[in-house]
Amino acid sequence: MAERLTGAARDAALSELADLGWEATEGRDAIRRNFRFRDFNEAWGWMNRVALIAESMNHHPEWTNVYNRVEVILTTHDAKGLTSLDVDLALRIGKLGQ
Amino acid sequence: MAERLTGAARDAALSELADLGWEATEGRDAIRRNFRFRDFNEAWGWMNRVALIAESMNHHPEWTNVYNRVEVILTTHDAKGLTSLDVDLALRIGKLGQ
Repeated sequence: MAERLTGAARDAALSELADLGWEATEGRDAIRRNFRFRDFNEAWGWMNRVALIAESMNHHPEWTNVYNRVEVILTTHDAKGLTSLDVDLALRIGKLGQ
Repeated sequence: MAERLTGAARDAALSELADLGWEATEGRDAIRRNFRFRDFNEAWGWMNRVALIAESMNHHPEWTNVYNRVEVILTTHDAKGLTSLDVDLALRIGKLGQ
């Protein structure tokens, strides 16, 4: 099981992810990022790409979709906080290029 | 444009939808329902079916997915409240059989 990131490792991860638009959430050990698309078609296509990645990693986002907007929150429930799985998923989402 | 439901028409719609598991949300003129599936695969498959219906209606849900759980909120942004579009979408979602 992935272990919760703490101390310098967590700081380094958050710093790297901040450059990609992710920020720490308030009140819980997680990261969040908002995405905006042209329309629902484009948002849903992107979400399907993320869904395939998430399923292949067996690590899934918490996410909300409202038409062309998607809010993604990443955390690792088993570890009750941020782990390397969340960093990996965020990086893989980043490679989709949105 | 669909007009916001009021009075007896709204009461009748909410009563019909309550039988299908939908409830009025607090603080806004909308309805919500929680769905639970076996796993992410099943939840995502169902969401794709709803997405195709929503896109064909050009009327989209606000929805949140966390692994096998999906919360769906229906309202009509243009009308700033519940309309027949939301009732139609809720009924079509109900026909998916979950």
